[in-house]
Amino acid sequence: MKNHLLGMKDRSRQEIEMLLARAAYWANERGVQSDALQGKFVANVFLEPSTRTRFSFEVAQKRLGAHVLNFAAESSSTTKGETVYDTLKTLESMGVEAAVIRTSENGLLQTLADKVNMTLVNAGDGTNEHPTQCLLDLLTIKQHFGRIQGLKIAIIGDLRYSRVLGSHLHALPTLGAELMLAGPASLMRDTAELPPGTRVVEVDEAVRTADVVMMLRIQLERHAGTLDMSKEEYHQAYGLTVGRAAQMKPHAIIMHPAPFNRDVEIASELVESEKSKIFTQVANGVAVRMAVLENLLNGGEKQWASSFKTANF
Amino acid sequence: MKNHLLGMKDRSRQEIEMLLARAAYWANERGVQSDALQGKFVANVFLEPSTRTRFSFEVAQKRLGAHVLNFAAESSSTTKGETVYDTLKTLESMGVEAAVIRTSENGLLQTLADKVNMTLVNAGDGTNEHPTQCLLDLLTIKQHFGRIQGLKIAIIGDLRYSRVLGSHLHALPTLGAELMLAGPASLMRDTAELPPGTRVVEVDEAVRTADVVMMLRIQLERHAGTLDMSKEEYHQAYGLTVGRAAQMKPHAIIMHPAPFNRDVEIASELVESEKSKIFTQVANGVAVRMAVLENLLNGGEKQWASSFKTANF
Amino acid sequence: MKNHLLGMKDRSRQEIEMLLARAAYWANERGVQSDALQGKFVANVFLEPSTRTRFSFEVAQKRLGAHVLNFAAESSSTTKGETVYDTLKTLESMGVEAAVIRTSENGLLQTLADKVNMTLVNAGDGTNEHPTQCLLDLLTIKQHFGRIQGLKIAIIGDLRYSRVLGSHLHALPTLGAELMLAGPASLMRDTAELPPGTRVVEVDEAVRTADVVMMLRIQLERHAGTLDMSKEEYHQAYGLTVGRAAQMKPHAIIMHPAPFNRDVEIASELVESEKSKIFTQVANGVAVRMAVLENLLNGGEKQWASSFKTANF
Repeated sequence: MKNHLLGMKDRSRQEIEMLLARAAYWANERGVQSDALQGKFVANVFLEPSTRTRFSFEVAQKRLGAHVLNFAAESSSTTKGETVYDTLKTLESMGVEAAVIRTSENGLLQTLADKVNMTLVNAGDGTNEHPTQCLLDLLTIKQHFGRIQGLKIAIIGDLRYSRVLGSHLHALPTLGAELMLAGPASLMRDTAELPPGTRVVEVDEAVRTADVVMMLRIQLERHAGTLDMSKEEYHQAYGLTVGRAAQMKPHAIIMHPAPFNRDVEIASELVESEKSKIFTQVANGVAVRMAVLENLLNGGEKQWASSFKTANF
Repeated sequence: MKNHLLGMKDRSRQEIEMLLARAAYWANERGVQSDALQGKFVANVFLEPSTRTRFSFEVAQKRLGAHVLNFAAESSSTTKGETVYDTLKTLESMGVEAAVIRTSENGLLQTLADKVNMTLVNAGDGTNEHPTQCLLDLLTIKQHFGRIQGLKIAIIGDLRYSRVLGSHLHALPTLGAELMLAGPASLMRDTAELPPGTRVVEVDEAVRTADVVMMLRIQLERHAGTLDMSKEEYHQAYGLTVGRAAQMKPHAIIMHPAPFNRDVEIASELVESEKSKIFTQVANGVAVRMAVLENLLNGGEKQWASSFKTANF
Repeated sequence: MKNHLLGMKDRSRQEIEMLLARAAYWANERGVQSDALQGKFVANVFLEPSTRTRFSFEVAQKRLGAHVLNFAAESSSTTKGETVYDTLKTLESMGVEAAVIRTSENGLLQTLADKVNMTLVNAGDGTNEHPTQCLLDLLTIKQHFGRIQGLKIAIIGDLRYSRVLGSHLHALPTLGAELMLAGPASLMRDTAELPPGTRVVEVDEAVRTADVVMMLRIQLERHAGTLDMSKEEYHQAYGLTVGRAAQMKPHAIIMHPAPFNRDVEIASELVESEKSKIFTQVANGVAVRMAVLENLLNGGEKQWASSFKTANF
């Protein structure tokens, strides 16, 4: 039974903290080349297109010395569960030790993990989870505040289809953060999915009272039926406008899982403003993925970074 | 004049045996990284799409320490002979020492081989040959039986368009195997193409009497005019059903050059059954390609692995 | 402020000569692997498709030991200036130190260079410049003649849209060459764009009197409105026919920035004729790009190869 990272769902506080400490080490050692995965093969199996996340994994893999294979599904036939299984068994037979998988299909990864003899890393599965994006958010928060416990985290926008939210709904309560959600009613998660203590609030309240204002990407064209708004209307109603950002607490930070729509969910001039951690998140993405791959491939079962040199916050 | 691997056509028994011995060495040294091709550039020029074969070559190249360039033809213009020649001359001028080529055009590779100053490896050319697939089949057979001489090999399915069959028609008689063919009459090879001693038999007889039952991929949509059958009908008429597999000899093995159509040419539950060597074939593909590239690029003319450390069967 | 290579426009004679000397060194050390960029990440951001130039950069990057990321724009949305900026900032945040960029947009690179904190290399921008193609032409000329000063260089064909011509219009006068242009009137540059001393002549005179006959690629389908000619007509009117080539001076050479249209701008049998330097140009492309990347990433500001071991001509 191989180690996997399928989601944040069953990860303990200790596991997450240890992984963040190792990721902080890699974030500090910016540009350093490691031979931790020298000679090992890792495949990026992206069944949905994603240049940014794939590059982030590829940089992480190459900084660790791994050989990288990039698999992109051209035809929809490869998105069928059985064929993905055959693809993974083929890669496994070729000697590939880990597959980083993005898929539109909820639940596919768990099914695959029970059947293959290689390490799987979830790079986004349907509307379910996106654990490495969650971890890089956590690292960014912890780098800034030194802690996550007790912080007020506001997540704003397309909550229904956000897979990183799916991961945060597990991880943030585990780490003792207070979660606020805001956004269009038609894009809200069902109450049953929300952890106890989660507050659904107005955007203005969320922005005004949060330590972390995390804006989510909105794809208006996808919601044409339920959310009939122009980009400008969405920006005024639910986006982080310059006016709203001015109401943020002095120490609060702005986050966004790229790619962002400028002047839709976030005002263009805020993207690189002093409060924004958006490109720090991108940098931390590499560090977190290095820690995850290193730990899964070189660590023991559930070891989660305990034997590695880590950095303090 | 560079060394090439264009086909099995003119390969002697000794050459094949030596190459298999070297491939067996690499198959045993699973996951080992070599520096045999350190600093050398190899290009994969796939003018027809093929993820699996390309990945297999890429893993082999990277395990040998080579730099890999992946060339995929987007437009059909690159499939014209002259332009492929210009592409190869360009790669050669850049310092690329070998090109692995897949093309839909029979005969193209021979023409190119006479004109370029780089090593060419056939990764499947039209309906002509697919020598590395043939070699990995041979390695798999020899690993299991310790020999190929005297074995009964049944190849079943789309015989007319199979390029691996094109290679086996040369290699199997050279190695002393007995060849049986079975499949739809409209997809049978012309008798003139078959080596002396080849027997064309019914599927049931082939399965019942062979040491190796090798099922070929069938693309029913391609044969709509000549073979008007549903997938289910094909499976019952010419596929390896669970019932047929139960008639196989005790020591006999099932093979298939992936990708396979589950429940068309082979029952899904047989793919990973005890008799099946399908994923062993995939693993052996890397080993065979390592041996081929190493020998062509580092060996002398027609050296065929003689100076390399080999493994016994 | 990072070093960039955006064009030949502001490069001094000394800078160019030093870079050519370093490129000549790499051209001599054919196939040698360097660790000059070991562990560094370089991204090829090709917003227009180009297999040849991208491979040339990729070979150069890998021979220098760099990690390579290949970014290909699938959708036209990425060609918008702002999104390219976000892409570069993302790559920069991931630790990528240099981006090689091809774009259809004139002026985009200069805008980006002022805003990002990474090294940019122009791999062709609109109809503006293509500096590494210019440099490889210069290297090829200097290897053959030992000098560029005083040579007569004829550039023939599609002059209006040629970006390498855009670079040569700056570099050739700087190095003291005499420039002749010939081609269809509808594809001629405006006189205001031409440096003093440039002569516009008939094709026959250009070919007969030049030391270097540089044919440019013509895309007749692009000029259907202004240049209504068949390929054969173009070849006779403006191409390098076998007859014209016979009129060249004894020591003169033929050049062409590949890919070439055989029997359109150049007779097919001239491509690999004794006078042709076309595939030498391809080989020199790798050497020039190695020198450029090495100098920009490892040299000081405007250092331009001064501290590197160079080759004499």
